[in-house]
Amino acid sequence: MSSDTDPLITLTTDIGWAYAAQMKGVILSRNPRARIIDLTHDVPPHQILEGAFLLLHMARPFPPGCIHVAVVDPGVGGSRERICLVGPQGTRLVGPDNGVLSPLAEILGAREAYRLDPGRVIPGETPSATFEGRDIFAPAAARLSRGESPESLGPPVAWQRLKLPEPVATSEGFEVTILHVDRFGNCITNVPMTAVRDRWGASEISVVLGAGRHRERVPIARTYSDLPLGTLAVLGSSFGLAELSVNQGRADERLHLRPGEKIFLQGA
Amino acid sequence: MSSDTDPLITLTTDIGWAYAAQMKGVILSRNPRARIIDLTHDVPPHQILEGAFLLLHMARPFPPGCIHVAVVDPGVGGSRERICLVGPQGTRLVGPDNGVLSPLAEILGAREAYRLDPGRVIPGETPSATFEGRDIFAPAAARLSRGESPESLGPPVAWQRLKLPEPVATSEGFEVTILHVDRFGNCITNVPMTAVRDRWGASEISVVLGAGRHRERVPIARTYSDLPLGTLAVLGSSFGLAELSVNQGRADERLHLRPGEKIFLQGA
Amino acid sequence: MSSDTDPLITLTTDIGWAYAAQMKGVILSRNPRARIIDLTHDVPPHQILEGAFLLLHMARPFPPGCIHVAVVDPGVGGSRERICLVGPQGTRLVGPDNGVLSPLAEILGAREAYRLDPGRVIPGETPSATFEGRDIFAPAAARLSRGESPESLGPPVAWQRLKLPEPVATSEGFEVTILHVDRFGNCITNVPMTAVRDRWGASEISVVLGAGRHRERVPIARTYSDLPLGTLAVLGSSFGLAELSVNQGRADERLHLRPGEKIFLQGA
Repeated sequence: MSSDTDPLITLTTDIGWAYAAQMKGVILSRNPRARIIDLTHDVPPHQILEGAFLLLHMARPFPPGCIHVAVVDPGVGGSRERICLVGPQGTRLVGPDNGVLSPLAEILGAREAYRLDPGRVIPGETPSATFEGRDIFAPAAARLSRGESPESLGPPVAWQRLKLPEPVATSEGFEVTILHVDRFGNCITNVPMTAVRDRWGASEISVVLGAGRHRERVPIARTYSDLPLGTLAVLGSSFGLAELSVNQGRADERLHLRPGEKIFLQGA
Repeated sequence: MSSDTDPLITLTTDIGWAYAAQMKGVILSRNPRARIIDLTHDVPPHQILEGAFLLLHMARPFPPGCIHVAVVDPGVGGSRERICLVGPQGTRLVGPDNGVLSPLAEILGAREAYRLDPGRVIPGETPSATFEGRDIFAPAAARLSRGESPESLGPPVAWQRLKLPEPVATSEGFEVTILHVDRFGNCITNVPMTAVRDRWGASEISVVLGAGRHRERVPIARTYSDLPLGTLAVLGSSFGLAELSVNQGRADERLHLRPGEKIFLQGA
Repeated sequence: MSSDTDPLITLTTDIGWAYAAQMKGVILSRNPRARIIDLTHDVPPHQILEGAFLLLHMARPFPPGCIHVAVVDPGVGGSRERICLVGPQGTRLVGPDNGVLSPLAEILGAREAYRLDPGRVIPGETPSATFEGRDIFAPAAARLSRGESPESLGPPVAWQRLKLPEPVATSEGFEVTILHVDRFGNCITNVPMTAVRDRWGASEISVVLGAGRHRERVPIARTYSDLPLGTLAVLGSSFGLAELSVNQGRADERLHLRPGEKIFLQGA
């Protein structure tokens, strides 16, 4: 059988490589044909929103039919459900029902979810209370990759519809949330770059940190290398969102920003 | 030939991605069919015990027949041997004979080891004195993955039987060793959680740092989310061992603990 | 079709795992048969020279016919070209024309380069100005992996012939550049170890930091474990180059060295 029909399973976690390795072993022991792709194991610990944002953008380019497993799961062993969401053309999303799967599910147009019932996923076994990535989600992904249906793993359920925070239009501009700080220190906001350009064109705007802590005029730029080294600017990230960036520097350190913080973009 | 029969080679190292990449190139140039799985390249540098602990738990879930390569090798180029340990059903362990393979070999019930003789693994070539992961272990793994026998790579040898440190029962409880600090700052000890529960039930115990440096009463918990945010507790790690954990915080920073340190668990 | 004929695509980037994951999705959506190998996503941000050095040494051991993609691209969206370099036996190098591909291309004996024309690589689509790794290089790699020719993606072009810095022989020894600091803190210089041995044999030399800031006599050693713990020495790295190393310590911290810095190796 040709390898291009072997099922793809992607992994997105905040648990680091060593725990993720155990998930890979569980998957491969149950389906040796599975092709496992590491998306990231570097999601900041316990950050469901940032994990949901990253999963959305990492998984979207993948072809239909993949099984995307996400383990950002501070509530492991607690009352949150474990689910499999069903997307079009055989795409499946597996993880805790804490919202980490929601933005991806929404963009894919997922319509159904099934509970992952341990009695059906791992009959006769008891999962640990501290690592369901290995004990439930990995075996579930392996079963799905062998062609088992989500329905066979548990009953239909409703799922949590977590929304990423939306920018708020104000009389002076936008209140925005930092969704992600990337490896370069770029701070990705939640406002589409098109909205920034529609409002202010290609000129300057002001970045305002909370409670008048800091106000700074910055240029709107097209890309990093259009700027002098060390210049702070607003530009269009590859996510389609406005990002704060310093050419070959770190915007997060310059502005002391972290994911989840709110700032204001205003006229200059 | 179908892809599910292509041989799996796992890599566990402390050398980082760039050096590990060279191992991958060597393997694939000698066996393009090999399927390489990264377990971790983040073992703390030179930490044989922690590497042995992680390898044991990461490799165990994998199916029989895998070739597990471990490179945590502070003695590279020195007098320590290079070995291939033979497990059941075709499982092979490849690495330096410094103990990093021992706990996994013991759990698998490995009975035989063979020296990796450079003259047979890389005839006519001279390995570097500083990176035998690339120059000996990767070519050996490639040969094994093509069906060559361990016997063809060198003579039978005895191997180092490194034991992970065991907990010591005292009149007041246990002296335990921190085997691993995970990405969340959880400190995994070497005492089985069942032993802790057998002794103290589901109540409180005391964590005592050496020489009366610190004594703290902590609850015994089932999982992280049963605890208020920021609470230190003892709970059952997914390794089956007792771990010190702070819900959404870092126990290692709270108690200033590092792998290898000994602490005491005592009655409250 | 057998999996060993499925095309290998390697990724070397400074962009981190989350952005690299998007490249993987793009590649697999355009060629589900591609086998993607992560070399590293940890190249220090924006460091073209260090990326070029690492790519050279990581990609060399791979078999002919691989497609090596490098994304260390501080000029993304600017005037630098995007290229595909053609090596022997079907090897292809894909990335920005900023020199990151040059040392590998030279060692492989690449003779031709082709511009990657967005109109041909992604007809009808507009790449982002900030992430051509996903928008141009990944789709180009996917096309090449399906057997499309480099000529079909753009016209022949000349390419930037970046050289790694060379050591300078002085009356007292060598002025050398630190090319890379590895995970252990070893500082890899650009002078071949053979040149050091030819000049000073197996004795001691002096390491001199700029402007008389520091001068220290250090032994020439064969491997790490020949040295007492904590001893600074010069020895032959696995790259064939002289490196400064502290047995189970960090030479970079001891000498406050970073990639790109120049130091002197002189007689003792």
